[in-house]
Amino acid sequence: MEPEVEGSIPSLPILEFKMAPERLKPRPLKGFQDFLPPEARLRERIVETFCEVFRLFGFAPMDTPALEPEEILLSDYGVDANKQIYRFTDLEKNRVGLRFDLTVSLARVIAASGHLLPFPFKRYQVGKVWRFDKPKRGRFREFLQLDADIVGAQPYEPEVELLAAVHQAFARLGITGYYIRINDRKYLADVLQELGIEDSRAKDTFRVLDKLEHQGEEKVFKELTGQLLLQDFDSALEYERMQEVKVPPDTARELLRRTQDSGRLRGYLSGFLQRLTEEGVPPEKVRADASLTRGLDYYTGFVCELMLEGAESVGSVGGGGRYDDLIGRYAPTSPTGVGLSIGVDRLLAALKLAGSGSDSSPVAVGIQRSSAAVFVAVFDDCEVSQLAAVARRLRNAGIPTELWLKPGNREGRSLSRQLKYADRAGIPLAVIAGSDELGKSPPTVQLKDLRTEFGEAGKQIEVPIEGLVEKVKDLLSGATES
Amino acid sequence: MEPEVEGSIPSLPILEFKMAPERLKPRPLKGFQDFLPPEARLRERIVETFCEVFRLFGFAPMDTPALEPEEILLSDYGVDANKQIYRFTDLEKNRVGLRFDLTVSLARVIAASGHLLPFPFKRYQVGKVWRFDKPKRGRFREFLQLDADIVGAQPYEPEVELLAAVHQAFARLGITGYYIRINDRKYLADVLQELGIEDSRAKDTFRVLDKLEHQGEEKVFKELTGQLLLQDFDSALEYERMQEVKVPPDTARELLRRTQDSGRLRGYLSGFLQRLTEEGVPPEKVRADASLTRGLDYYTGFVCELMLEGAESVGSVGGGGRYDDLIGRYAPTSPTGVGLSIGVDRLLAALKLAGSGSDSSPVAVGIQRSSAAVFVAVFDDCEVSQLAAVARRLRNAGIPTELWLKPGNREGRSLSRQLKYADRAGIPLAVIAGSDELGKSPPTVQLKDLRTEFGEAGKQIEVPIEGLVEKVKDLLSGATES
Repeated sequence: MEPEVEGSIPSLPILEFKMAPERLKPRPLKGFQDFLPPEARLRERIVETFCEVFRLFGFAPMDTPALEPEEILLSDYGVDANKQIYRFTDLEKNRVGLRFDLTVSLARVIAASGHLLPFPFKRYQVGKVWRFDKPKRGRFREFLQLDADIVGAQPYEPEVELLAAVHQAFARLGITGYYIRINDRKYLADVLQELGIEDSRAKDTFRVLDKLEHQGEEKVFKELTGQLLLQDFDSALEYERMQEVKVPPDTARELLRRTQDSGRLRGYLSGFLQRLTEEGVPPEKVRADASLTRGLDYYTGFVCELMLEGAESVGSVGGGGRYDDLIGRYAPTSPTGVGLSIGVDRLLAALKLAGSGSDSSPVAVGIQRSSAAVFVAVFDDCEVSQLAAVARRLRNAGIPTELWLKPGNREGRSLSRQLKYADRAGIPLAVIAGSDELGKSPPTVQLKDLRTEFGEAGKQIEVPIEGLVEKVKDLLSGATES
Repeated sequence: MEPEVEGSIPSLPILEFKMAPERLKPRPLKGFQDFLPPEARLRERIVETFCEVFRLFGFAPMDTPALEPEEILLSDYGVDANKQIYRFTDLEKNRVGLRFDLTVSLARVIAASGHLLPFPFKRYQVGKVWRFDKPKRGRFREFLQLDADIVGAQPYEPEVELLAAVHQAFARLGITGYYIRINDRKYLADVLQELGIEDSRAKDTFRVLDKLEHQGEEKVFKELTGQLLLQDFDSALEYERMQEVKVPPDTARELLRRTQDSGRLRGYLSGFLQRLTEEGVPPEKVRADASLTRGLDYYTGFVCELMLEGAESVGSVGGGGRYDDLIGRYAPTSPTGVGLSIGVDRLLAALKLAGSGSDSSPVAVGIQRSSAAVFVAVFDDCEVSQLAAVARRLRNAGIPTELWLKPGNREGRSLSRQLKYADRAGIPLAVIAGSDELGKSPPTVQLKDLRTEFGEAGKQIEVPIEGLVEKVKDLLSGATES
């Protein structure tokens, strides 16, 4: 429909804007991603599902800024984190940085606003984080994290709850091919003590062990015993730091042997594992792994990683652990904490790799380019009001509906152009009506099923507008038409 | 429940981490906000409602990076935007910046990936944006925006759809006290032409007119006629730019007079306004306002702002317009576009100010610190498995349920401590059961309604576990108990 105007639009001066002298390259930065509708909808659905399940367990949402004071981010969380933070000076000369996880901000909020919160405090949070890392498959410089944390509660019930919720969310998404690696740093500390490795070296030892999966046993052995050369490190500082570990070769061999003995760890964790089974997490999904430490320095007990079968090469799709001292960096008392982080973009990449992200997989079913279930075609501007009323009727019944919007070029009005659009956007049904149908008493429309072979005549029926909602619901639910 | 462990935890060395020499101040940056659960849930609900309604109109989600190449952000969108961008050099020496809106990235994506998209392309996007602005009530340096845009369709049907969707979302949230200011830059350009103001000055004139609401008629008059002094500007560049406008005083007076004549504008927009009414937007919500221009340079036609009654002082809670040339800055062809942006944090601030954000307002009903509807108390570690099964039963029926997690201090197990927590977290119902109840055949629990006066004895009933879900549903739906 053309608007009725006083003063005609064509005669008005078109506002001219300067074009950039050279056209800009429309690419995102390296390691950053654009998400177009079908994939973005899948990502949104993953996030919605996890949030829904966490709410079912009584978690409440929270949000914090993406930009934090640099000093908050630079606290001693581990060398790697400090090298990976995007930091700069703002226009008021403050040193600021983009957060590299959601846990540090949580700790800051507990310290700042703990008096306003009920404890144990259970929150989930969805947000982007940034790490200046080398981009590769499944590893991005900006990625979406979904965290759930429980602050102020003792092991292992909170750990059980977090993993039970993850299992439920995965089940709702149709993701069954996953497993959880779990360990406890207290158990590992016990092993270190038995082997005579000093407490002061524990953190560095954990950081070296964390590389076992990626770098293999020989490299880790060399790093533990201090046999690596300076050239193996990114900086002299890092080299110096590693030299502090220096475990005798026999001890290092024994440590690596023990990290492969999961039986003893399972014994240590037996109560925990039993509760997990009660909560519906199948035992075969849980793999006790004494070599798992997680990279960040703030973990003090339980640690875990979520892996997708067939997509191990992209790394873990989530992970977390217990950090009982972290909040004390900002607050006079340090409530205990435990949390779990889903790497949403990593999960998306892993699903693609494992084939679960294909159009026909359970997790992707119903994901399309448009959110609409019905497309309403428009041929004549004079009929917009009537056809908009049809669209409104469908929307009021909760059926997502798209009314054709005129693109303003010659072919804009042709039925084939409009149906091609609806088909491309993945909309299953189309309403087609001209003056013939709308002029009847009672008025009708043609209802076309676009999921059948394109253009197949048999799949089009005439329906009175009064009965349209019911007919659409029938077709969408898969009932056979009359 | 204590985990059954081999090797006792107390004897293990507790991992000691370095404390920062001085405790860090746990504050967010100036102009940045933490959102704690009750407010965060309200914010989440606003976002969910808008997304739901946009999907109902056939919009699909999209996402883009928060960090963009600087050159993408710095394209000539207007002086103010360029002064407000957080920009820096990353570790690979790229000049980068945090996005100041979601529209520029949309234009970049259309240019980069347009061949993958169906047109007209309808997308919504939720994301944070950053502007280095002077913080005040309702104006933040980091804020959440929710944008819906339609690319590749002619006026005014897309505009109608966007405003109809906003009206529906507001209605679902119980927000009725709002209005929409609308104008069309093409109409304004017509006025400028009639007054003999050159096309080349149109953009600058619009930018000056945009200040009418904030700075008043006299200051705007001075700026239009070039009577302002250098000291009134933040920079010589800005001053110089303004000097280019220099409208003769009589013309400036006439221009200001005409921007107050909404009758002629209503005539120009009459077809548009009629369609809005058909779509259920009450005519009194729409205020034609010929002085409205919006600050950013890329608008070419329709512009609008959403205002909350009683909270005009925080500024508009949303706005947008038509930008028919923007995409051409990145792409060889320039599909037309029109979009609308909801300032979620501004809206939250405005709701608080207007009183609609209070606990009893329709928009905030049901918003609490925990997401749970039922709290399950735990007195004895031995009963955790049984009580966890009760929690599971409720969750499996879709009822958000929180199982008490032991905080690990002495008072952790007392009933009063646990109920105080549930009350503080705003959980309406509590399940209380010890060996007496759980040992019965069939086992039962006590169900307590915490919404009644705290501790009132009459509001506690014993229910067999078999019938618990039904009873809880009754109580939550407000049915009277037997």
